[in-house]
Amino acid sequence: MRIYADNAATTKMSRTAVEAMLPYMSEIYGNPSSLHSVGQEAAEALADARERIAKRLGCTAREITFTSGGSEADNQAILTAAKLGEWKGKRHIISTAFEHHAVLHTLEALKKEGFEITLLDVHENGLVTAQQVREAIRPDTCLVTVMYANNEIGTIQPIAEIGAVCREAGVLFHTDAVQAAGHLPINVVDQNIDMLSLSAHKFHGPKGIGVLYAKKGIALQNLIYGGAQERGKRAGTENIPAIMGMAAALDEACEKMDENAAKLTKLRDRLIEGISQIPHSALNGDAVQRLPGNVSFCFEGIEGESLLLLLDDKGVAASSGSACTSGSLDPSHVLLAIGRIHDVAHGSLRLSLCEENTEEEIDYMISAVRQVVEYLRNMSPVYRDLEMGKREFIIK
Amino acid sequence: MRIYADNAATTKMSRTAVEAMLPYMSEIYGNPSSLHSVGQEAAEALADARERIAKRLGCTAREITFTSGGSEADNQAILTAAKLGEWKGKRHIISTAFEHHAVLHTLEALKKEGFEITLLDVHENGLVTAQQVREAIRPDTCLVTVMYANNEIGTIQPIAEIGAVCREAGVLFHTDAVQAAGHLPINVVDQNIDMLSLSAHKFHGPKGIGVLYAKKGIALQNLIYGGAQERGKRAGTENIPAIMGMAAALDEACEKMDENAAKLTKLRDRLIEGISQIPHSALNGDAVQRLPGNVSFCFEGIEGESLLLLLDDKGVAASSGSACTSGSLDPSHVLLAIGRIHDVAHGSLRLSLCEENTEEEIDYMISAVRQVVEYLRNMSPVYRDLEMGKREFIIK
Repeated sequence: MRIYADNAATTKMSRTAVEAMLPYMSEIYGNPSSLHSVGQEAAEALADARERIAKRLGCTAREITFTSGGSEADNQAILTAAKLGEWKGKRHIISTAFEHHAVLHTLEALKKEGFEITLLDVHENGLVTAQQVREAIRPDTCLVTVMYANNEIGTIQPIAEIGAVCREAGVLFHTDAVQAAGHLPINVVDQNIDMLSLSAHKFHGPKGIGVLYAKKGIALQNLIYGGAQERGKRAGTENIPAIMGMAAALDEACEKMDENAAKLTKLRDRLIEGISQIPHSALNGDAVQRLPGNVSFCFEGIEGESLLLLLDDKGVAASSGSACTSGSLDPSHVLLAIGRIHDVAHGSLRLSLCEENTEEEIDYMISAVRQVVEYLRNMSPVYRDLEMGKREFIIK
Repeated sequence: MRIYADNAATTKMSRTAVEAMLPYMSEIYGNPSSLHSVGQEAAEALADARERIAKRLGCTAREITFTSGGSEADNQAILTAAKLGEWKGKRHIISTAFEHHAVLHTLEALKKEGFEITLLDVHENGLVTAQQVREAIRPDTCLVTVMYANNEIGTIQPIAEIGAVCREAGVLFHTDAVQAAGHLPINVVDQNIDMLSLSAHKFHGPKGIGVLYAKKGIALQNLIYGGAQERGKRAGTENIPAIMGMAAALDEACEKMDENAAKLTKLRDRLIEGISQIPHSALNGDAVQRLPGNVSFCFEGIEGESLLLLLDDKGVAASSGSACTSGSLDPSHVLLAIGRIHDVAHGSLRLSLCEENTEEEIDYMISAVRQVVEYLRNMSPVYRDLEMGKREFIIK
């Protein structure tokens, strides 16, 4: 059995999305900035996609800027707020300790330029509150950026309430909705969102394309200078095929959102229930306020990386919470943020589902995880010490 | 007859490039940062594409950074040189008056931050010389950026010689090779190039993907912060399908480069010869040192925009040199840079060919341009004045 359970990392493109892209590669291939009809056909498609995406977010087409993905959108949103803030002498930014690196590393860069960054603590259940934001806002705060749903533990933040607090205080509010878009309802008006980032490849759309929504009146600052594309705010020939694929994927995801969420929640809860039976295991993040497809666990006494490799041998593509890809041995900043100690955070596993997963696959994964955890613990000197009472279990 | 003669704006994707992309959309769709085999298959493809592209540029795979296109690559190259320069107290940059806006507008932004920009004059034939660069270099120069081939008039700059001058002076040399890649030989070692930008959609590859080559030892500065992709220098999930499409398109373009150039040069010269017969018309840029597919003319007494629209009616997709897309009435900065006066620069036409164009199409275009120019001149009060001797022709 081959199971893909790493949909938070990236998804398989849907047939609809692929088919929406193809005509724009070798038929309607013009540059939308060209005056001739080949270009204008592309420009019309672009306008149509922009309208459709705007509708899905509850905003107007002019408030949509196409970017190369979520990271670029996050960077541009933060850069914009920082520059606008700086001009008013406001150099304080509020975020959280468990944001995506596209936010955290951008904030670190701003810190070097003299900005002051407050990272809100995250509660053990993987949530921050609007109250925390309210208390952190200062007269010199120029931006609050809080992710909609966390990429590792899947917890869903009270975005509308945080947005309301920001609006009341007159502070710009940005949300990284990369994990949320296509999976959770978004309405930038109702949710008081000033800027929002999303990425198509997280909802069965193409890689290399994303959106930065910025509320009318926010003077977006260029990250990429050049041509007059995107109202002069993002240079570079528009990636029409990818934009068409993204629009199709978002339409599809939004139309099936309730149905998918119901199906996924059932699969997710079955998987959580099954894995919870493993001794000394603990779910990361709130059991209810979480993405319908996200399952994240810590297992005491083992290494997440070995867990992944052995699961892969059993045909299960999963992810760890640890920053293994960077070659670093540091455990995930997200798991540390919710209070997991280093040793426990190292033994983490994320299974992120999509609507194509089946109950049969869930049961297979429960059994595979159980076997692999047991196998690794049998070999683990740390676990032996824990069992012999030489060290105390953190996860009871 | 429908003729696409705007290949400098964008190209139709080749069948090879499309086919190279497809498997990575819905089969090998993993995230190359994932440890599991779905991800590692993608990582292997990525490594292979990087090797192949590096080979085509004469560099090593580690010197290749994938970007969302030429504009992003230009921005990152210039930002890098500026930051590295600033740390050494060097805040002077040399470029030319007819660069692409991705370069010029980035330089303008740096000017606001206190950098001093020298824009070299361009000779009437559309060329700058290594000697001009030598004379402009100062002790505080941190970057020379000169495009390989101009996007409007197609003239080819003496890149290797300019590179040699820069190397001798210890100044970083960047070239925007967006119009050159796939069409002209590139070897970054032989040509003394420190940084180079290219974009796939200019050589029948996909939109939304490009390369920044940076010589080993140059500490690239992030434009986009976030994940550890691209050795930490360019965050965002790698756009594997587009990268595979780009690698295939570049391989194809390089393998057929001589053959295509020979064919295109013949078509181009036939087109130039035919259009030159129109009275008061002038070729823009050197007749020999130009891209094999580029034809650029000015016609006195008419408006480029009307010319394009009427040609479009006749089935010819062409471009003007003017910045019509930005809604501005200013004529092209490129044509002004080579000394065309405003009135003349307004009457410009660019026909950029690809190897799929035919002699029959060339002859059709010659006839179509001739008819349209004549028609427009018959309606033009300016042209009437010129003919009646009330004003003097600039183009004799």
